[in-house]
Amino acid sequence: MTARHRLIVDWGTSNFRAFRFDEAGEVAETRQAPRGILTVEGGGFEAVLLAQIGDWIDESTEILLSGMITSRNGWLETPYIEAPARFDDLRNSAVTSRLAQGTPLLFLPGVCTRHPTPDVMRGEEIQVFGAIGPNEDSTLVLPGTHSKWVRTKGGALADFRTFMTGEVFATLKAHTILGRLMPQEAGPFDEASFVTGVKQAQTGGAGLLHDLFTTRSGVLLSQLAPEAAADRLSGLLIGAEIAGGIALGWADRPILLVGDPALCGRYRLALESLDLSAHLGPAQPTVEGFRKLAMLEGKAV
Amino acid sequence: MTARHRLIVDWGTSNFRAFRFDEAGEVAETRQAPRGILTVEGGGFEAVLLAQIGDWIDESTEILLSGMITSRNGWLETPYIEAPARFDDLRNSAVTSRLAQGTPLLFLPGVCTRHPTPDVMRGEEIQVFGAIGPNEDSTLVLPGTHSKWVRTKGGALADFRTFMTGEVFATLKAHTILGRLMPQEAGPFDEASFVTGVKQAQTGGAGLLHDLFTTRSGVLLSQLAPEAAADRLSGLLIGAEIAGGIALGWADRPILLVGDPALCGRYRLALESLDLSAHLGPAQPTVEGFRKLAMLEGKAV
Repeated sequence: MTARHRLIVDWGTSNFRAFRFDEAGEVAETRQAPRGILTVEGGGFEAVLLAQIGDWIDESTEILLSGMITSRNGWLETPYIEAPARFDDLRNSAVTSRLAQGTPLLFLPGVCTRHPTPDVMRGEEIQVFGAIGPNEDSTLVLPGTHSKWVRTKGGALADFRTFMTGEVFATLKAHTILGRLMPQEAGPFDEASFVTGVKQAQTGGAGLLHDLFTTRSGVLLSQLAPEAAADRLSGLLIGAEIAGGIALGWADRPILLVGDPALCGRYRLALESLDLSAHLGPAQPTVEGFRKLAMLEGKAV
Repeated sequence: MTARHRLIVDWGTSNFRAFRFDEAGEVAETRQAPRGILTVEGGGFEAVLLAQIGDWIDESTEILLSGMITSRNGWLETPYIEAPARFDDLRNSAVTSRLAQGTPLLFLPGVCTRHPTPDVMRGEEIQVFGAIGPNEDSTLVLPGTHSKWVRTKGGALADFRTFMTGEVFATLKAHTILGRLMPQEAGPFDEASFVTGVKQAQTGGAGLLHDLFTTRSGVLLSQLAPEAAADRLSGLLIGAEIAGGIALGWADRPILLVGDPALCGRYRLALESLDLSAHLGPAQPTVEGFRKLAMLEGKAV
């Protein structure tokens, strides 16, 4: 059997990115365009794909697709496979289709868990497998709009929880009374105010819905500078997320931070202020995950 | 000394309301107009006041002013007095001024606390004193945009905490991914979904920032009907607020609910689902508080 010539397309809401791999599993070429699924009208995904990477395709090509292209608003909606999930489950559960010219398409699934609470991810699992070794037991945190805490066991994605930390921060700042006392222009990062917020979130007290309000009342009572209020709010929210991870028992080992370096740095500061240790994962976990996927043998299409 | 002829003006962001009291302390007349402070340009508050209730004023009149008119954006910003605060402290700490024609004005203060966390209220204290007896030890909850939990001791407002429950609910529904799976039109109240949310918030687990996301992931995994998601979210938030009150040790007695009857009913249901007892306060706590204020003897102006 000749080696398949594999292409991977990471097709999100705003951007189209494609990776061509050589036979050694290294990235031979990358293309990127602002042709996210929101820019594609009338379901014309195949035409966009061919316009971007049609010249990469030959008889031995197969294309793996990941990202929002596999969601309800994408080309083909794939199911969620249930955790614990192994890396090759991703490929083996891909939903297959073909281009009109016959090229096989593999739309990758998301991952879900149902107990004790329902949770889903779609895309982050690639980063997780990109960041860990083949048989690793670990706790990963992928900070962001919807931050993910992930436990791996023997190299499988064993369990995870989503926290709405990033989206809640942005929304409270933009749309509630809390933002009104904050300067429009972000100043330099106020580390002390941030860390105070992280620690306040660990004390329990009246809980997050009260703590949030103290970023306003603190300013009104001159206990907090207006310039420090946004970083206090950030500390309270990231601190509440970490309190959740601790309550789950998932902070029992050094935490691997995966994602945007600036944001990961903020999480590391928060974790270390609580005497938890953290280290940074690979710079490009998605590409690393794709590289491993490209090398993987899977079911024939 | 002849009895003062007292008028009370409740002047908020959107509305102007005025109460004229007779000598027995009963409401003799009420006027209301959509002339909140946001509608008053160039600081012309005196002209608006005279246009609304100029005919009520005689030589013996004094006017107490409450609401956002006493805030930074109002006519005269009053300070916060510190809890524990007695009812007559409100009047005695009023900031005095006069109309051009000489009529005394008393701008009422807000109430604050600084430890263990900063907190403020401006207006709710009137409802609290309107709702309780003269020497009462009680826990009151005033649900709303910024829900207040209040402890009174011997009739004084001893301590309180603000929870951003109402504003966070509205903002998450309007501006985050959680709202996208919810039907635009609110259906009938889904009591079972609400109560499940209240109870989920008591279990700890990964905490509120995760629980919020389950109102989306639950729908994606068909564990929650889209029509039930908004009431689940409401239950999670009100449940988190109550968990805060329990953690403070303030749910150790029946809780007096003060405010909008429909919202108070929802809180009563939540409290009772956790085997806590609750009862409803007076229908018009602000008017009741004003009535008591109008009767109060205080410092001369």
